[in-house]
Amino acid sequence: MRIVITGAAGFLGSRLARAILERGSLTDSRGNLRSVRELVLVDVVAPAPSTDPRMQAISGSLSEIDIVDAAIARETDAVFHLAAIVSAQAEADFDIGMRVNVDATRALLERCRTCAAPPKFILASSLAVFGGALPDPVPDDAPLMPQTSYGTQKAIGELLVNDMSRKGFIDGRSLRLPTVVVRPGKPNKAASSFASSIIREPLAGVAVDCPVAPRTRMWLASPVRVIDNIIRGHEAPAEAFAHSRSINLPGISVAVEEMVDCLRRIAGEEVANRVRWNYDPAIDRIVSTWPARFESAAARTLGMRQDEHFESVIRAHIADSGIGLTGPI
Amino acid sequence: MRIVITGAAGFLGSRLARAILERGSLTDSRGNLRSVRELVLVDVVAPAPSTDPRMQAISGSLSEIDIVDAAIARETDAVFHLAAIVSAQAEADFDIGMRVNVDATRALLERCRTCAAPPKFILASSLAVFGGALPDPVPDDAPLMPQTSYGTQKAIGELLVNDMSRKGFIDGRSLRLPTVVVRPGKPNKAASSFASSIIREPLAGVAVDCPVAPRTRMWLASPVRVIDNIIRGHEAPAEAFAHSRSINLPGISVAVEEMVDCLRRIAGEEVANRVRWNYDPAIDRIVSTWPARFESAAARTLGMRQDEHFESVIRAHIADSGIGLTGPI
Repeated sequence: MRIVITGAAGFLGSRLARAILERGSLTDSRGNLRSVRELVLVDVVAPAPSTDPRMQAISGSLSEIDIVDAAIARETDAVFHLAAIVSAQAEADFDIGMRVNVDATRALLERCRTCAAPPKFILASSLAVFGGALPDPVPDDAPLMPQTSYGTQKAIGELLVNDMSRKGFIDGRSLRLPTVVVRPGKPNKAASSFASSIIREPLAGVAVDCPVAPRTRMWLASPVRVIDNIIRGHEAPAEAFAHSRSINLPGISVAVEEMVDCLRRIAGEEVANRVRWNYDPAIDRIVSTWPARFESAAARTLGMRQDEHFESVIRAHIADSGIGLTGPI
Repeated sequence: MRIVITGAAGFLGSRLARAILERGSLTDSRGNLRSVRELVLVDVVAPAPSTDPRMQAISGSLSEIDIVDAAIARETDAVFHLAAIVSAQAEADFDIGMRVNVDATRALLERCRTCAAPPKFILASSLAVFGGALPDPVPDDAPLMPQTSYGTQKAIGELLVNDMSRKGFIDGRSLRLPTVVVRPGKPNKAASSFASSIIREPLAGVAVDCPVAPRTRMWLASPVRVIDNIIRGHEAPAEAFAHSRSINLPGISVAVEEMVDCLRRIAGEEVANRVRWNYDPAIDRIVSTWPARFESAAARTLGMRQDEHFESVIRAHIADSGIGLTGPI
């Protein structure tokens, strides 16, 4: 297998790369289990160096056709397309969002048509493709009615993945990721970034603003679950999909105030009080258009799983980041 | 008002141009009724010459940016975007469909951002944006789940019109046209072309193949109704739209065998027998993915209307095309 990951220097991309290398083999579009021979990591930021001989890095923008061509060589078997302009940035700058989220996605898909066999193509999509009046919980086949530019651009990607799969150009799957918590590192320009910050920063001894109302509900999943479900989405046979290649990944529905309550139970009053309710209408306007509960029926038939509860999500983050009870808690 | 019609040499485009000139004034995006000063007809085929001083023609492809720039001058108030690669051709040639139905639409939309005020933008969309398992009748907010490349490309256009309207770049409306019958002239590469042919050709004394099963139902509207409803779609205030700028235009649901029965009642046995049932799986595969009955609730609140019944559609065609009872009938 020659496997490509875009956005590979990012949090999910680098974890996905590790998980694929550990796994050692994946199923190709003809249903054959094959060992991972080559894992190509593409990102504008140079991915972290590795001694694994299967790994190779390509640094550059997917807006440059040379980078796309180098990434998707003729013998490519699978593409995990994680690179994207995130929600708040795509909302602030329409053109850069279109260029990366639509044009680069299309360039990758077009390039896949030149491959020896139609590669699997996994698009990291988003619950931001939904909006307007929706049933609760939201089924897999709910209307695409995005209320943000990010959601619009992801919906366009989904439509292309569907049609190009139907045409036999690729074997595509669009996986609508829940908001992933707890992300390490610095906050980014995703409107959902605060959902990680309000757990991560207080645990590190730092005060943090929460820009949405306490009762705002979100659809959440831990990094471990999301990576596992992405790989299950890749492994699923094409026959598992009917009229659409789009799937809502499983998650748990949690109100922001419940998230802080969980933090309080685990880490104490002082830590939880580092969350300051500082309403930001620009962020809340984006987040409140996202539905907070999904059926994920298709995902469950593919063996995808959700987190047990939000406390286990926090505990996983604490274990992951090596925060001790003698630390800033 | 400076008004642009793309695909203006076509059947609907030329009728729309006439209707707008006769009307003499339209409502701009600020809600002001203004007289039509300039009507720009754009098409790859040179539009028919006219002595009306308000009309001007631009011949050329919307894939050329010079043509797009010339068409959408700075003072443009409204764009009726009817130019498209039709369904069967878009299915046979994925690339030309993407180039015209997606790229040219996007180029027009982008150019609208340079206008003095956000112009109204009317996208002629299609019921082909729907597919898969659907409620009957189909509501306006049913899922976009196209099962053809044409439907995919129109759905992408709708998403762009929605998002760019939300951003205030345009004041857009996507109108999902029923299959328009009876079109005059020659059959074209639309998979729905037979729906006109099976009425028009027998009336002209010519035998014709019907490529779909007799019980296949279609969602139909006459040219007069469609043109009237397109103009009503343009005239509607932006406040009439909530989460989506897309509207199902009204129509009537008729089985193909009922269409032929109506022809028999009006024109006699000999004429109706000129329809030969000659099944074509490639056409039927496309047509059968289109739902045949819609709610059109939003359309009705905008005062849009449907035809009375299919017999009146045939009679309108006969009156229109000057076929006398002493003609080939």
